[in-house]
Amino acid sequence: MIYDGVCSCFIFYAVLLVIKMYIIAIITGQVRLRKKAFANPEDAVRHGGLQFCRLDPTVERCRRAHRNDLENILPFLFVGAVYCLTGPSLAMARLHFLVFVLARTLHSVAYVFAMRAPTRSLAYIIGQVPCVSMAIQVLNAVATYA
Amino acid sequence: MIYDGVCSCFIFYAVLLVIKMYIIAIITGQVRLRKKAFANPEDAVRHGGLQFCRLDPTVERCRRAHRNDLENILPFLFVGAVYCLTGPSLAMARLHFLVFVLARTLHSVAYVFAMRAPTRSLAYIIGQVPCVSMAIQVLNAVATYA
Amino acid sequence: MIYDGVCSCFIFYAVLLVIKMYIIAIITGQVRLRKKAFANPEDAVRHGGLQFCRLDPTVERCRRAHRNDLENILPFLFVGAVYCLTGPSLAMARLHFLVFVLARTLHSVAYVFAMRAPTRSLAYIIGQVPCVSMAIQVLNAVATYA
Repeated sequence: MIYDGVCSCFIFYAVLLVIKMYIIAIITGQVRLRKKAFANPEDAVRHGGLQFCRLDPTVERCRRAHRNDLENILPFLFVGAVYCLTGPSLAMARLHFLVFVLARTLHSVAYVFAMRAPTRSLAYIIGQVPCVSMAIQVLNAVATYA
Repeated sequence: MIYDGVCSCFIFYAVLLVIKMYIIAIITGQVRLRKKAFANPEDAVRHGGLQFCRLDPTVERCRRAHRNDLENILPFLFVGAVYCLTGPSLAMARLHFLVFVLARTLHSVAYVFAMRAPTRSLAYIIGQVPCVSMAIQVLNAVATYA
Repeated sequence: MIYDGVCSCFIFYAVLLVIKMYIIAIITGQVRLRKKAFANPEDAVRHGGLQFCRLDPTVERCRRAHRNDLENILPFLFVGAVYCLTGPSLAMARLHFLVFVLARTLHSVAYVFAMRAPTRSLAYIIGQVPCVSMAIQVLNAVATYA
């Protein structure tokens, strides 16, 4: 199954997106260390003292980027997988996945580097288009059997 | 596989729940615009000035509803899928999925409209019952092979 | 498929991790009741008055532990599933899953009980090793077909 064209294509892009999420987590950790802004007293104590248990705008920005990924990339992992099972053409499927991957990558870059609005919001909306399209196609495919 | 009764039934309800999560995200965005309460300075600047980079109780309420969905609907997408593979009867499976969908829909409505406690908590608990039931059945099914 | 060794093994540990996440949610709720610290005014009113709609450091700690699970366990549910499809040996697969389960369990315990740094961070890093390893193996397996 994994060596079917559409499934392989989906899995490839989906795992890239998971790695993108891991990278945001690493960036958050690095910013915490550099800005000395920790969420937990035990971390702050280890890095100089309780005064470093504090909020930092850049850390919060990274966390919002990460949370937005949780809200959008994680549902994509499911919707994309069941969309593959509906038997789309490889070209159509690849188009859906590619638009999502590019939009979500732009979203992360726009978020972390605080690019001028509405870059990030546009990337979010463009990324939702293939998701909603796949969701509708899946509902269509299973509705008569559900 | 997607045209098996239990799987179709699961996919149908699961995708509906994902769409429900997307709707919460849209509501959050609309409330941000209407209340002029943005999380990012670049968004606030685009909508009138840095003073609109601020917290708003209704926005935070929508975000809590969304986060609770992440905590519960996303695990359901996995537990429900593997539960389908254990070969339950269609009637039993549909009952599990339907209770979860109705409970989570009530949970979102109760959250966004701040309905009197303990409506939202009850909806949460009722939604967890089919999840825990499916989790136990899955553990039972695979335990001897794991 | 569910009775294949590697898949059963994965599903077993994955469902245990989902139950672990449910337990964190239950702990958060219990701490909210014990500390009388609620996120919603309607809950506070039901438990004594609006003054109990407030933040509490222990509640926030539980919520951070839960959020870190969302960021790491949920992607594992996907990456582990597609890793199973690449046909790893049972011994190798079990090693990956077991390291992740033990590391994430230690992570939760270290978080909730505020164990001395860097226990929690080490548990996080150790848990990421099998995830990144599986992600790379999956990319390798599907790259030529994607």
